Amino acid sequence: MTKNQGQSRVIIENVQPQVDGGLYPAKRTVGEMLEVSADIFADGHDHIRADVLYKQEGEKEWTRKGMTHRGNDTYTCAIQLDKQVNYLFTVEAWIDHFETWYDGIIKKINANIDVTLELREGANYLKELSGGSNKDLESIATLFEDKKKSKESISKVTSSSFSDLVHKYPLRHFETRYPTEFVIKVESSRTLFTTWYELFPRSASSTGKHGTFQDVIKLLPRIESMGFDVLYLPPIHPIGKVNRKGGNNSTTSKPGEPGSPWAIGSDEGGHKAVHPELGTMADYKKLISEAKARGIDIALDLAFQCAPDHPYVKEHPEWFRQRPDGSIQYAENPPKKYQDIYPFDFECKDWKGLWEELKSVTLFWIENGVTIFRVDNPHTKPIPFWEWMITEIHKVHPDIIFLAEAFTRPKVMSSLAKVGFNQSYTYFTWRVGKGELIEYMNELVHGSSRNYFRPNFWPNTPDILPFHLQHQSENIFILRLALAATMSSNYGIYGPPYEMCDNDPVPGREEYNNSEKYEVKKYDWKRTNRMTDIITILNKARKEHRALQSTWNIHFCAMENPNLIAYIKCTPDLSDIILTVVNLDPHNKHQGYVQLPKALLGLGDFINVKLNDLVTGEWFTWTQEWNYVELEPNRMPFHLFELKIHESNM
Amino acid sequence: MTKNQGQSRVIIENVQPQVDGGLYPAKRTVGEMLEVSADIFADGHDHIRADVLYKQEGEKEWTRKGMTHRGNDTYTCAIQLDKQVNYLFTVEAWIDHFETWYDGIIKKINANIDVTLELREGANYLKELSGGSNKDLESIATLFEDKKKSKESISKVTSSSFSDLVHKYPLRHFETRYPTEFVIKVESSRTLFTTWYELFPRSASSTGKHGTFQDVIKLLPRIESMGFDVLYLPPIHPIGKVNRKGGNNSTTSKPGEPGSPWAIGSDEGGHKAVHPELGTMADYKKLISEAKARGIDIALDLAFQCAPDHPYVKEHPEWFRQRPDGSIQYAENPPKKYQDIYPFDFECKDWKGLWEELKSVTLFWIENGVTIFRVDNPHTKPIPFWEWMITEIHKVHPDIIFLAEAFTRPKVMSSLAKVGFNQSYTYFTWRVGKGELIEYMNELVHGSSRNYFRPNFWPNTPDILPFHLQHQSENIFILRLALAATMSSNYGIYGPPYEMCDNDPVPGREEYNNSEKYEVKKYDWKRTNRMTDIITILNKARKEHRALQSTWNIHFCAMENPNLIAYIKCTPDLSDIILTVVNLDPHNKHQGYVQLPKALLGLGDFINVKLNDLVTGEWFTWTQEWNYVELEPNRMPFHLFELKIHESNM
Repeated sequence: MTKNQGQSRVIIENVQPQVDGGLYPAKRTVGEMLEVSADIFADGHDHIRADVLYKQEGEKEWTRKGMTHRGNDTYTCAIQLDKQVNYLFTVEAWIDHFETWYDGIIKKINANIDVTLELREGANYLKELSGGSNKDLESIATLFEDKKKSKESISKVTSSSFSDLVHKYPLRHFETRYPTEFVIKVESSRTLFTTWYELFPRSASSTGKHGTFQDVIKLLPRIESMGFDVLYLPPIHPIGKVNRKGGNNSTTSKPGEPGSPWAIGSDEGGHKAVHPELGTMADYKKLISEAKARGIDIALDLAFQCAPDHPYVKEHPEWFRQRPDGSIQYAENPPKKYQDIYPFDFECKDWKGLWEELKSVTLFWIENGVTIFRVDNPHTKPIPFWEWMITEIHKVHPDIIFLAEAFTRPKVMSSLAKVGFNQSYTYFTWRVGKGELIEYMNELVHGSSRNYFRPNFWPNTPDILPFHLQHQSENIFILRLALAATMSSNYGIYGPPYEMCDNDPVPGREEYNNSEKYEVKKYDWKRTNRMTDIITILNKARKEHRALQSTWNIHFCAMENPNLIAYIKCTPDLSDIILTVVNLDPHNKHQGYVQLPKALLGLGDFINVKLNDLVTGEWFTWTQEWNYVELEPNRMPFHLFELKIHESNM
Repeated sequence: MTKNQGQSRVIIENVQPQVDGGLYPAKRTVGEMLEVSADIFADGHDHIRADVLYKQEGEKEWTRKGMTHRGNDTYTCAIQLDKQVNYLFTVEAWIDHFETWYDGIIKKINANIDVTLELREGANYLKELSGGSNKDLESIATLFEDKKKSKESISKVTSSSFSDLVHKYPLRHFETRYPTEFVIKVESSRTLFTTWYELFPRSASSTGKHGTFQDVIKLLPRIESMGFDVLYLPPIHPIGKVNRKGGNNSTTSKPGEPGSPWAIGSDEGGHKAVHPELGTMADYKKLISEAKARGIDIALDLAFQCAPDHPYVKEHPEWFRQRPDGSIQYAENPPKKYQDIYPFDFECKDWKGLWEELKSVTLFWIENGVTIFRVDNPHTKPIPFWEWMITEIHKVHPDIIFLAEAFTRPKVMSSLAKVGFNQSYTYFTWRVGKGELIEYMNELVHGSSRNYFRPNFWPNTPDILPFHLQHQSENIFILRLALAATMSSNYGIYGPPYEMCDNDPVPGREEYNNSEKYEVKKYDWKRTNRMTDIITILNKARKEHRALQSTWNIHFCAMENPNLIAYIKCTPDLSDIILTVVNLDPHNKHQGYVQLPKALLGLGDFINVKLNDLVTGEWFTWTQEWNYVELEPNRMPFHLFELKIHESNM
């Protein structure tokens, strides 16, 4: 409260964006506009002015920008976010008696009411605004005070230059400042636009032999040509030998079976070592630099758990839970046991030492060139730990991206995003119908999680072959790919099986049969097919079209057919407009009429829109608000249209 | 944060009820249940326990009550509010390893897995829980540690007594306490159930002469017999003589015209005086005590504004805004002028003196017996002033009720309720259609304003003869009355013109023609008619049926006909159930089927419900979920059913 609180009549409420009353920062990316809004009102009918006050963290002075009344006591203001720093903002508002006076005198003049006294009041306001230092204002005050010049005064008051003057000079008294300063964490624009490809490096050789980092380097041209810019490898560390899993998740392994890369650590080293069969640290660093030269970041898997023979188990038994017989508690979800995995005991007495060690693992890989971490099962480690670790890392390395692989309950996923994860896996993997896709997208884009949860859409992962892809043909793989790549600016695929439409599950489960998690696969890395062509086209369109480089700009178009979904993404200046139409039925042709959103696109009554299908290269012209579309999935399950609006539309 | 924050893995979010993050208290009334809810979760699958911690303000120790998981990480707990004080509450949660262990061992036993080690772990938990002081727990621990008694141990673990024991003894480690302590302001149950009648005391004589408090006393039996328990009189203070308004809001008055009672103050006194023509202070106090003897509270109008000849204007010119010519600024809404009213200047230098004086006015009337204030246009005085004044008054006089007469924008109305008004006028006055009535009621009852905004429904006021009543017949007056009296537990009417269905407006406006605001009216106070009969029946039902004494328990019943609206109110124990069905069309008969809410009423497949129409005395029996209703408005526009559920239904 200010010292004048008794005279400060303006109330400010519901300042947005904010997360949990300011407990967590709201997130944006460099180049985005920040739309600040607040409910602002006072008693009576006096005119209110409101400013957003904002600054970069560490700056002393606030920058002010005036807010605009949008009706129903809501005020807004948009601020350009240029730098990758934390911004602070709050809202200040006050009653502007000069503006109130101006509104009143204009109404009285229009109603032919004598305004002699009002002009003298105006003179007083002008003198107060001038403070003795503005000759223009003073000379108008002198005019208003001259009773003989009332005609001239009225002509001045009603001039447009005077209206400009009133708006230019706010008269401040008894300002109300919102008590909280909210933080906006502006992250790199990279956090909003990434295209992920996942492969197991041990399957990177074409010969069936255990692959190496050198083999992965040979695959980079292929990954680059398909348009991916993040290559994510499952854990690259030594794999536990004790209780090693066999093929198809068998609890015993035969000699020579490679085990799960998520069972980290053996006598060959732990989280700071690389698996000898993949190569050396030097090989891994070479992979990072060769990839970088092609515009590809190598994402490391951060899986904070240990195999029974991980060095930590001997060196730091205090970080694990001991059972009454002195054995160490393995992971379990009763009655299931996971005897190849020892979870850390985050409640142990030396939790600080454990936290520091895990941070040092992250820093170790950053120092070796890693910029992106895909974090395995973050929801099985304490949320306060992630909050601390990500904050600590971002203090020194603000560009590092953490993707939360948390397929769990909604509030837990939200919480991980709030405390700092830059990207999050989502329920897209299971959203199939038109209604649920639209509802989910609208929740992500227009719900409160917009301020902290940045989605990354995956049609499949090594852990998930969803039911709707099982035993299905290429069409659904294509349409799910198209949805992921065009709805979300961040998306990825577990590539090799997706390219060849591997649809073979463990019966009754959403898991791959003969999962690569437990064995080395042999792929034909030279293969190209319809799927690889479409991947290439989609990723090229994403690179060339800024409209596809945001998730927040999606607008669903009305379309009656429940099998067809249509949505537009465009840049704020409408220089780039993409319309996607997808047939969600992989088996049958569907047709319908899609409505162009006239207000969004600035279309008038005459419509003349050229459409270029970026997949087929076909051109269309639409001259109606509602336009016919037909999709035969066996030809192509989707349209990806670039829209060119003829100027006469505007 | 606690000192163990690193090991405290539980996250608590979204604690409800709260208003603006705890900036304002949430309101309840004595006897209500407080339903506390929160989102509570942690990493992993460990079992969570949560308690609500609550106490009365001033108490040192918290009382704990366990919360129940309702799915989707939401936990709830209901607390009985017995006292008219402020309660504090917060939420604490932690991981209960004993419960997690119990869940695991049961699953393992069921899967025939050896649990030797698990029993030893259980023994350790039991010993920790006992802390050396609970022989029962220790003896079970001894049993579990005895390897020879594993069969007996398993039989013990799987017994229902052991399940009870696990739930009885929470094992606490590393609790997370929500950082905010929220306030619940428990107000008197009177704030939730009042029945208001408004009349101008100057029209209380039957002769056409200026009425007096003595005349009002004579009307008390009539008001009591109609079932009202609040009698609200417009301002009773001396009326300004300078710039006095004439009939129909004329800017000039003829000699003998009484003026508007809201133009307060003259040489006869100000806000602490009574209008001589109404009588003396002694007469007013007699009215208060005579009314109280009949169970009626006299509500005073608190209109903080002055006539030009109010004593304050001379004694405290600093409380008013001076214009350049030395005159005092009258109220205006340009180009309209209200020259009979001087508003206070709440931005004046002596705002503290002004605040204190206005508080002293309120206290003066409290000391003279007033318990309820209807506050005139609170939205034209600063919201911080009301927050201060009501808080100050309630510290000493917690029973005083303030009704906010703010017919203004929604956020301003909300804010006044947040800062302390106990009741508020509402938009009911203009909600006519079925859809908008249901939407508005659901907003009031299920929206966030439920925690602070207590509605009071008025079909008319001296300022408002809404368009839908203008030139209309008695039927719509009856149905609007029935809606107000049965939807909201607080309601009122500006009685004399409502009883005789005065439907004569100033053309094109929602104002009464020949408004009583500017003249003395002559009423036949002995009159009874269909309307007074129905008022009496409705108010009797409200007094006799607890179901009608809350606004928060309304449940709308499905009914297809858009002209018929049906809703049930019942007590939590179902001992009192009222079903209201209203025909919203005052001209035509309508019929349709109303659905009984089976889950709410605990109805099974066999339905046998007796209905007694409290208006007509008719009895019906319903044996179906959907039941035929027909309403001929010229007979009666609504049903008011008391429901008796035959026990075989349950």
